[in-house]
Parts: sequence; structure tokens; C-alpha cells
Amino acid sequence: MIVILKRDPDKAQLRSLMTWLESKGVSVHTTVGAQQTILGLVGDTSAIDIDLISALDIVEAVRRVQEPYKNANRKFHPQDTVVTVKGVSIGGGRLAVLAGPGAVESREQIVSLSERLKAAGADILWGGAYKSRSSPYSFQGLRAEGVKYLCEAGSLCGLPVAAELADISQAEELKDVDIIIVGARNMRNYELLRFLGGINKPVILKRAVSATYEELLMSAEYIMSAGNPEVILCERGIRTFEPHTSFTFDISAIPVLKQLSHLPVIADPCYAAGSYSLAEPLSEAAAAAGADGLLLVVNADPAHALCDGPLSIKVEGFEKTVKKVRRIEKTRLESD
Amino acid sequence: MIVILKRDPDKAQLRSLMTWLESKGVSVHTTVGAQQTILGLVGDTSAIDIDLISALDIVEAVRRVQEPYKNANRKFHPQDTVVTVKGVSIGGGRLAVLAGPGAVESREQIVSLSERLKAAGADILWGGAYKSRSSPYSFQGLRAEGVKYLCEAGSLCGLPVAAELADISQAEELKDVDIIIVGARNMRNYELLRFLGGINKPVILKRAVSATYEELLMSAEYIMSAGNPEVILCERGIRTFEPHTSFTFDISAIPVLKQLSHLPVIADPCYAAGSYSLAEPLSEAAAAAGADGLLLVVNADPAHALCDGPLSIKVEGFEKTVKKVRRIEKTRLESD
Amino acid sequence: MIVILKRDPDKAQLRSLMTWLESKGVSVHTTVGAQQTILGLVGDTSAIDIDLISALDIVEAVRRVQEPYKNANRKFHPQDTVVTVKGVSIGGGRLAVLAGPGAVESREQIVSLSERLKAAGADILWGGAYKSRSSPYSFQGLRAEGVKYLCEAGSLCGLPVAAELADISQAEELKDVDIIIVGARNMRNYELLRFLGGINKPVILKRAVSATYEELLMSAEYIMSAGNPEVILCERGIRTFEPHTSFTFDISAIPVLKQLSHLPVIADPCYAAGSYSLAEPLSEAAAAAGADGLLLVVNADPAHALCDGPLSIKVEGFEKTVKKVRRIEKTRLESD
Amino acid sequence: MIVILKRDPDKAQLRSLMTWLESKGVSVHTTVGAQQTILGLVGDTSAIDIDLISALDIVEAVRRVQEPYKNANRKFHPQDTVVTVKGVSIGGGRLAVLAGPGAVESREQIVSLSERLKAAGADILWGGAYKSRSSPYSFQGLRAEGVKYLCEAGSLCGLPVAAELADISQAEELKDVDIIIVGARNMRNYELLRFLGGINKPVILKRAVSATYEELLMSAEYIMSAGNPEVILCERGIRTFEPHTSFTFDISAIPVLKQLSHLPVIADPCYAAGSYSLAEPLSEAAAAAGADGLLLVVNADPAHALCDGPLSIKVEGFEKTVKKVRRIEKTRLESD
Repeated sequence: MIVILKRDPDKAQLRSLMTWLESKGVSVHTTVGAQQTILGLVGDTSAIDIDLISALDIVEAVRRVQEPYKNANRKFHPQDTVVTVKGVSIGGGRLAVLAGPGAVESREQIVSLSERLKAAGADILWGGAYKSRSSPYSFQGLRAEGVKYLCEAGSLCGLPVAAELADISQAEELKDVDIIIVGARNMRNYELLRFLGGINKPVILKRAVSATYEELLMSAEYIMSAGNPEVILCERGIRTFEPHTSFTFDISAIPVLKQLSHLPVIADPCYAAGSYSLAEPLSEAAAAAGADGLLLVVNADPAHALCDGPLSIKVEGFEKTVKKVRRIEKTRLESD
Repeated sequence: MIVILKRDPDKAQLRSLMTWLESKGVSVHTTVGAQQTILGLVGDTSAIDIDLISALDIVEAVRRVQEPYKNANRKFHPQDTVVTVKGVSIGGGRLAVLAGPGAVESREQIVSLSERLKAAGADILWGGAYKSRSSPYSFQGLRAEGVKYLCEAGSLCGLPVAAELADISQAEELKDVDIIIVGARNMRNYELLRFLGGINKPVILKRAVSATYEELLMSAEYIMSAGNPEVILCERGIRTFEPHTSFTFDISAIPVLKQLSHLPVIADPCYAAGSYSLAEPLSEAAAAAGADGLLLVVNADPAHALCDGPLSIKVEGFEKTVKKVRRIEKTRLESD
Repeated sequence: MIVILKRDPDKAQLRSLMTWLESKGVSVHTTVGAQQTILGLVGDTSAIDIDLISALDIVEAVRRVQEPYKNANRKFHPQDTVVTVKGVSIGGGRLAVLAGPGAVESREQIVSLSERLKAAGADILWGGAYKSRSSPYSFQGLRAEGVKYLCEAGSLCGLPVAAELADISQAEELKDVDIIIVGARNMRNYELLRFLGGINKPVILKRAVSATYEELLMSAEYIMSAGNPEVILCERGIRTFEPHTSFTFDISAIPVLKQLSHLPVIADPCYAAGSYSLAEPLSEAAAAAGADGLLLVVNADPAHALCDGPLSIKVEGFEKTVKKVRRIEKTRLESD
Repeated sequence: MIVILKRDPDKAQLRSLMTWLESKGVSVHTTVGAQQTILGLVGDTSAIDIDLISALDIVEAVRRVQEPYKNANRKFHPQDTVVTVKGVSIGGGRLAVLAGPGAVESREQIVSLSERLKAAGADILWGGAYKSRSSPYSFQGLRAEGVKYLCEAGSLCGLPVAAELADISQAEELKDVDIIIVGARNMRNYELLRFLGGINKPVILKRAVSATYEELLMSAEYIMSAGNPEVILCERGIRTFEPHTSFTFDISAIPVLKQLSHLPVIADPCYAAGSYSLAEPLSEAAAAAGADGLLLVVNADPAHALCDGPLSIKVEGFEKTVKKVRRIEKTRLESD
């Protein structure tokens, strides 16, 4: 951490800052220039709250040099983390395919769909139960009943099951779910993150549409520092000025997050683009960029889906997409 | 609502769409062109889920003509809504000033600060108790204890009290608070919004840093359609590419939201800009643009605040700012 | 085009609008609702300036239904455009590789580099001569001299040459260049675009960092409507809030632009990401998403480059990247 | 400037970097930590190209501490710059009002309009002649003829005249114009900026819709370092995700630019918001935030303007707006 002081800083305040910094276990090196004095802080600065220093009268600016996350940082954990659920691995080279409908609509729908998804190559079944709709007048999901059907379907077809926990109060209802999904709008719900740090299940953490890579990693840090090391990062598009797609799928997030962190990184191109017609090229792009998995929205009959119809791939499209990404995965593994 | 059909739409599917639309109580006018056929939907389309139409094979695109919100819409409620709490009004011309510390740190701190804020012209006391920090290693607030001290301070100095409800589970702890604040990161927490629709207190709804005006109004619609009409909208900055400020304070939100809606609109320039030195000019700008209130972060000793120091105004700065905005408010009232 | 009228529009003004619209060759269908009257315009609306209608007192809003570009529109030209220069094709399935240094620094540098690039699989040589630097104190390029060396190098190694035209006044100096590049910051330089509409060379048009897909296509339309049909679109990253990369490489631009337009679409991952370490995964992603070409910044000695060092790939990295993207290209062709 | 080295940097490379830095006149202080070695550079670093250091193999990251601009920097020029043209001053406390039509359409139009604008309180006349339209099918302006009429109108009513120079080739045609405007899309046209550094007229430099404050100041630095100190900065909105306004008017730019620089800062709320109905509140907000001037688009008959109709204020609205902002200006002066 670098602290840039204002000209002619008050001596007593400077001494008090130095003492406080040293009490935090960091050592301080001072560089005096004509315009500015610079303090170089050396040691573990991850626990130093940058605001506490910035607010001082003698300080002009503070710049971080070290990343503020530790548990999620590849520097302290160079090996890829591999998360394994009922024999399915995420991370470590293979591409895991998660597939399912935007909304579970009935027991029949999800049971029949899950069989087809498994046959087409899905590794994990997911489905929407508590839907977050921007309009209170839209279908809000089957909620607890939807989770129940989803778990039954997973059990029948032999796939592990992933579902979103939208609020701590729903935790009991998701007890049979194998992987918990934290939706993008909950990435900064720190009460929820702390809660998930105390459970014994992998968590897929979706990037908020306005979050930087560092903020996503800090949210992972919340879960990890509270005791749960099995976090899977998920890129699902960021909000930009481009109106043609729902969100801008940030493909760079995949290689960058894998450089910065040892955690698995998966991609959610359907919710990012908002259109089934982009799901296939974006899935291939994500696979080529090194993604550890894909989370795809698949529906037997998108035209009559109660939600997410425009962004849902048909089962036939899913089959084709899986074949394509498996071919790219093979190419990727060969060339490394 | 306008539905643009693909060329040569399947006749049976088109008939089925028309029948469904009419069952929803809207009438349909068809315009046939060489390139495209266009359906014009007339009537109350706010309850029609646009996705259900977009996903149809015969549809190329759907464009809304009417706003998707009703309760919050000025078209159906031309008069300004005025929210009144213990004799203090928000909306309807006068500028309400909410002031308090980013974090309640002790009983003494908030009691002594609240007296000074009242003397300087604050109308409502607020304070942070459950802090949402991006790092798990930063100070997380006094939580329930902080709320207790805040309510005591309000009671002692005779000001109504506002505080953030970060999770439904904290509701009981906030029972003595007069106004509930929904933080920006909770603007799309629909479980929380539905819950707040059932309480009998005004709600300050902060715009998420990535939310459009329409999305903010749809979140207000969640609360209002669930039974609580007392929603106060709050602009607190959006995320853009500019790194100098924490967020870009979107001044246009004030006049636009007041055109689109009858709800009061207040401004939070401190968290937007992230710097006390911008709080004063932005407060004046917000007042000049027609804001119904200001939510300001004020601290007796920002340099030693446990959080939000860099963005906190000193009490002396607050006194100066209140004088300035009151002068602008006067100018505004005279010239209308 | 859809025109939404205000309630109770002035009859005379409405008649005048209808007459004017019909004089432009479009027919008008009227839908009268309780809240709103909607005019549906049918016919070729690309030449109608939307602002001329929006400004009328009787009009509430105007929505486009048809795209405002014609020459660049796939609807009117379903076949892929293939641009061919000295035997090298861009578009139509194969991936063209353009490579060269951010700045031509000397005759020796570019001659020696170009031989290595050709050997590694480059199809076209490019190089920076008129550099656009954000600081007036940075190296500004060899300018005319740089173009001369670049053309000599292309001629010696037998590769066509591409270079940026930063201002119309430089056109004579670029007379031997085979492909003209329009930099991102010139995408809205309409004087320049009109000029390029009158020349007989292909133009690579880079997307401005703040331009939508539609705006990029409208800039292509400027060139095409002025007589030059050989436009190659180039995605090079957009400006977002993410600070880790220079720009956010918008991978969706590739499939979307190819859906909307028949023009070839290439990708420039180096300037987008701003880091050589992302160039390889983003190149593979672009190839997988269907790009018709890649424009790569390659330098024999990035550590000592006079500009663009951090984003330049070494020749060894370029060789590896070309092999990888060729493998993906093969996969892509097989699976179609 | 702070240089963060990778672990165990190559000794020879480090020595070579140190020698080079010292040859540039900066002194280097080294801080060695367990994880990282940090170099603190002290002295004038504005002429050091950050890329030249970042690209070195031994360097992990570089952070600027000092601003990269000198001429525009308030630190080296604490007094406000005041630009004076034919007796009208911009900067130094008073609010200058520039007004005129988006497009000069005829001699009669501009002569008659300019008289009314002067009567209503305009200080400077401006008008659009070379229009930058996103569609090649829209009205492109009267060009040289428009400039001629504009200058005649200014001369007749006794107001100085401002007009946009869209390309160096138009300079001769603008010889009678008093103030040159650089449009937002030309803010990074460095050929044009260098040219304007050599003329003897004030330049209004509009912020590009995707430019940071620092980038705007670096563009001012181009003009200033080439010999022209009379630069006026202009905020005209940035591109964000919000679709309701054309651009997001960044009110914070006004106080921030005035903190960072001594140059006058004016505001252009009409092109920012894209709607006349927002021009008035945003003008008041800009005045309250400390703007040195307003550039307003005014038209006698917006409904029939050949361009910019929806964002043009009527003359009556302009009169009202001038009165309001003058009242705020008075308040501002009193309270300082």
C-alpha cells in the first residue's frame, strides 16, 4: 500500500499514523520529494481499511499495491481449486455443463426435461424456483414447490442439482440441493454471503452486473473467510450502454479471474446476452477462453415458457452446443 | 405495446397470439407492410409480461409504449405525493434534510452529534448500523446496538429517525425507526421489497448503481402494489467508467423521476461522489434541480471515523451547506 | 417506425404530419386507444430523420422498427461480403490474421519483423505510423516515414499492408497502403468517412469505445452510401467501469454484427484488453465466436517498444496463438 | 510514480531501469518487502511514458501519484484562468451564457434569432454549421455558408461568435469566428488539437462521451503545450446504461475539474440530456455547482428545426432559464 501525503504534513499526525500502521504489523518506508512525501507500506495490508487512512487530513491519496483478498488469491494458493459434487468436478481442466429451465413450471416438465438434458451431455441439473422478476405483475416462480420438483428430477435422472438461494429464510427449503447459486443481484448481500460461509456445500457466486473483478473476489472472500472454501465464480454479463444485448458478456473475466484466483470460473451466456441465438457462439467463446463450466438455460418449449423464453435454448440447440463446446474443450486440452 | 412480427408469420400461431392478447383485455390493431406486420396493442398493458410475447417464433421484436408501472406513475396520479413523519414532510416543495454518521460508533457519539445536527437545521436523523462493507476484514457496524443508540438519540433531540434494513431478519430490531432505508444493493431484493409493502412506515428506496429510472420505479411498484404507498426515491450515483468519483451522481434523475412519478425524490451526494469536498456543490446542484430532500453523511470527526471517513462532511461544513441549499430552495420557490 | 401521439393531439398538426409522412413515401396506419394514439409507418423509413418527428408538439415518442441502415443491412443483402486484397480474403469463413507492431520504429525493425510474421502465418501486415497518444509528451510515431517503411516491408515479404489514416490530409502519404484503418476515435469523423466512401480500397472500421452496434453500422453506411462497399467491421473493446482491462472486449459484437450485417467482422483483442497475457485467450474466443479475422499487435521486443509495449505479443506468442486459432477455425468449419 | 516490481527481479534489468529513470531527472527510492519491491519516483514524472515502464519483464504494475498534465494543472497555476473575447469574460466567477441554434438554417433565421437571444441575456452567439449526424441521410448543415450567416448575425447584434471546427480543412472558413468549439467526438483528434495549439483564439473543448476527467485535461494539455493557453472545458454528458436521456450529464465534472485545473468549465445540458424539458433544471444545477458558463441550444421554432429539435429550448424558455440561473449565480456570489 502506498500513502501519498499532502505537502508539509502535520508532524504529530504523521507520527500517530506511523505508530498505528506499525501496530498493524506493517513496516513503513518513507520517500521524501519536493512535491510529495510517499509512504511505502510493506507486509500484509489486506486487513487495513483503506478508508481509515484516506480520511486523514495529512493524506492526499492511498493506492493499493497488494490485492485486498487472501483466501481467493492465486498468489497464496497457486494450484487450481477443483470442486467435486457427487462425482462431477468443476475446475481443473474439464468443462462442466449445467443445464435447466429458467423456471420450474411443473413436476412433469422438469422430470421429462432433465432426462433429455442428461442424454444430451449435461453434468448438473439446475432450475429456477424463486424468480427475481423486475415486475411484480410477472410470474414469480413455484418457489419451495419448484425446488422440490427439481430435486426429485435430479434424483430420478442421477444428476446433482443446483438452485438459487434468494434469501436466508429459504435455506431450509433448499436442503436437498447440491450446489447453491447466489444470483448477481445478491453478490453484495453480505448477510447471505456470511451465512453461506457456514454451510457445507459449494456455492456458485454470480458477478453483479456492476461489479469489478476485485469486488467479485471480495465477495468470494466473504464466503471463504467464514469457512467455506468451495466457491465457483460465474461471469453473467455486465451492464453497459449497448442496448442490443441484455448485458455485455465480459469474456475477459474468464482468463483474468483465472489469473488472479485459483477458484473455478464458469460462464452464463444466456442471461448475459438475453437471446438464445447468441448462446451458442458465446458458449463456444467461453470454452475457448478457458471457462471451467457453462450454465445454460434450456427449455423444451421456449415459446410457451412462463419466463425467460427469449433467452432459453431449445433441447435440440443444447445438444448441438454441447457437441461444439466439447470439440473446443478437446482442442484446448490438446494444445496446452 | 407494439409487436413486430417476422415476415409471413404462421397463421395459426398469430390467431393464438391475438386470442391470448384479447383475453388479457387489450385490443389489437394490425398494420400490414411489405417488410413487416405490426400489431398495436391498446389498453392496460402493464400486466402483460413482454417476455411471453418476445419468445414466440412469429415475433421479431416487442416495444413498450406505455410505462410498465402504474402505482408510481404520474399519469395516473398527477399530484405530488407528500410523506409526513412526526411533523416532517418530504415532497411538495420544501427541501427535507436528513443527516447523520456513516456508522453509529457509540451512544455518546450519536447523542452529541444529533444535537448539533438539529441545531444546524437537520429535519431527520439517520445513521449506519448494519454496514455493508466490500471487505470482510472491515468494521461491520454496531448492528442492533447501533439502532438502539440511534433511536435514543432521535428521541432525545426530537428528530424522526431513519435507518437501513439490510435483511428481513433485522425488522424487529428496527421497530422504533420511523423511516426504513433500502440500500442501493437491495433495490432488486424483491423478497425485501414485498415485505416492506406490508409495513406501515415510509421507505426510502435507493437506486441501485446499475439501475435505470424505469427499474427503480418498478422496485417502487413492488412496494406500492403490496400495500405501502409511502415510497421516497433516492438518487445515489451510478457506476460509470469515471474513476475520480466513487459513482457518477446522476443529477438528471431528479427532474426525470419527478416527471415520470409523483413520488418524492431525494439525493445522496456523499455516497455518490465518495468525497466530502464534492458534497457541498452537489447538494446545491440537487437543490437547484428540484430535489425534495438531501441525505447527508455528517461526522464530528471524519478523520477518526470507523468507516466512510473520506466522504463524511464535518459539522461545520454541514452548517454551511444547509445555509446554501436553503438559499437555493428559497430562490426556487420564488421563481416558480 | 411507430409514432406515439400525446393525448388529444391538435388536428391540424396531425394532418400536416400525415401529409408530410406520405410525401416521404411511407404509408400510415392509425391505432386509437383510450390513453394513446399510435401511428404505424410502413415502407422505407431509413431516410426519415427521427428527430424531425420527435420534436413536434403532438408527439410523445417515436420508436424505430426497421434498422436505419440499408447498405450494411443483411436483410437486403443476405450473402456474406468477402473483401479480397492481393489474393487474401476477409469474410466468407476463413480467419484472416493481420499482424504488426504498434509503432513502426525503423526500416530494419519492420522489415525483419514482417518476415517472421509471415513465416508464423500472418496474412496481412499492419503497423502504427501516426500514433494517437493521450499525452502530448509521448512518442507520436514516425508518421509518413513509418508508412514508407511499412509498405517497403510488405512489398519485400509479399504481404498486403494495412495502416491507419488519422486525418484526410495524410491520404497521399498512404497511397501505397492496401487497406485503410479507421481508428476507434475516428469512427464518428464523418468528414473522413465520406472521404473514404470515394476511394477504391477496403476500409477497416473500428468501433468507437462508446458506440453501439447500430452506430457502428451507421458509420459503415456513411462509407458505403458514398460509394465504397468494402467495409470490414472491427470490435476493439468498449469503455466500461471495469478497471483491470483497458477496455471490455465485447465478444457478443461478433455474432450480433454478423446477424445484422453481411460485412466481415474482425477482432482486435490487444488494444481491447491492453495486456499481451489476454491476447491469446481472447483471440481463441473471437475465433470460436465466428470472427472473420484478427488484428494483433506483435513486437519482436515488447519490453523496449516505443509504445504499446504492455499489450504487444512477442513473436513466439504470436506463433502459438496462430496455431491455436487455426485449430479452432478448423473445428468451426467442421461443425457447421 | 510508483513502480511495483515482480518478485526476485533480474538485477541487470533493474539497474538498467534505475539508470534510465535517473537520466530522466527523477530520483528513485526503493522499498524492499517480503512480497514486493516498490520503487518510489520523485521529481517531474509528467514526461515519463508509463507504458515504457509497464512493459518491462521485471515490473508488475505502475501507479501514477502525480497528475500527467502540467499546463492545465491547478497545482502549478492556482489562480483561475479568465478568457476574454470582445469584452465578454469566461471564468472568474460570472456565468457566461452562450446560446444559438443547433443548425443555422438561413440568414434570416439566425439574424432574427440572435437579436432575441441578446435581448434575453445571451453573452455569446453560437450556431451549428457543419453538423455531425449519425445518419448519412440526415441534414448535414449549411457548412461554410452557415458560418458566414452566423458571423454576420453576431456582427449585427454585437455578440462574439462561437462555432465548431470539425476538420482542419475548415479552418479558413472559420477565420471570423471568435471562439472555436471542439466537438466531443473530436476530443481525441490529436491532429486537430495540435493545430488549435497554434492559433490565437480561445477553444471550447468538449469532453468526449467516453472520456475521463484526466483524459479531457490531457487533451487540453495538447492545445496548451502547443502554445494556446485559452482553453475552456465543457461537460456535455457521458455515455452510460441509462436510456431515458441521450447522455448522463455528469454534474460532478464541474467541481472536480475546477479543483484539478484553473481553466474555466462550462456546461452543455441540452446535448447531454437530449430533451428541452431537462435543459432548465440542469442549467440551474450547473450554475449551482459552480459552472463558469452555459452553452444552450435555442430555436425560435424547435418543432420545425432541421435538426436537434427535441433538445432545443424555445426563446421563451431561454428567457426564463436565464433569469433563473442569474438568480442562482447571485446566490452563489453572495454566499462565497
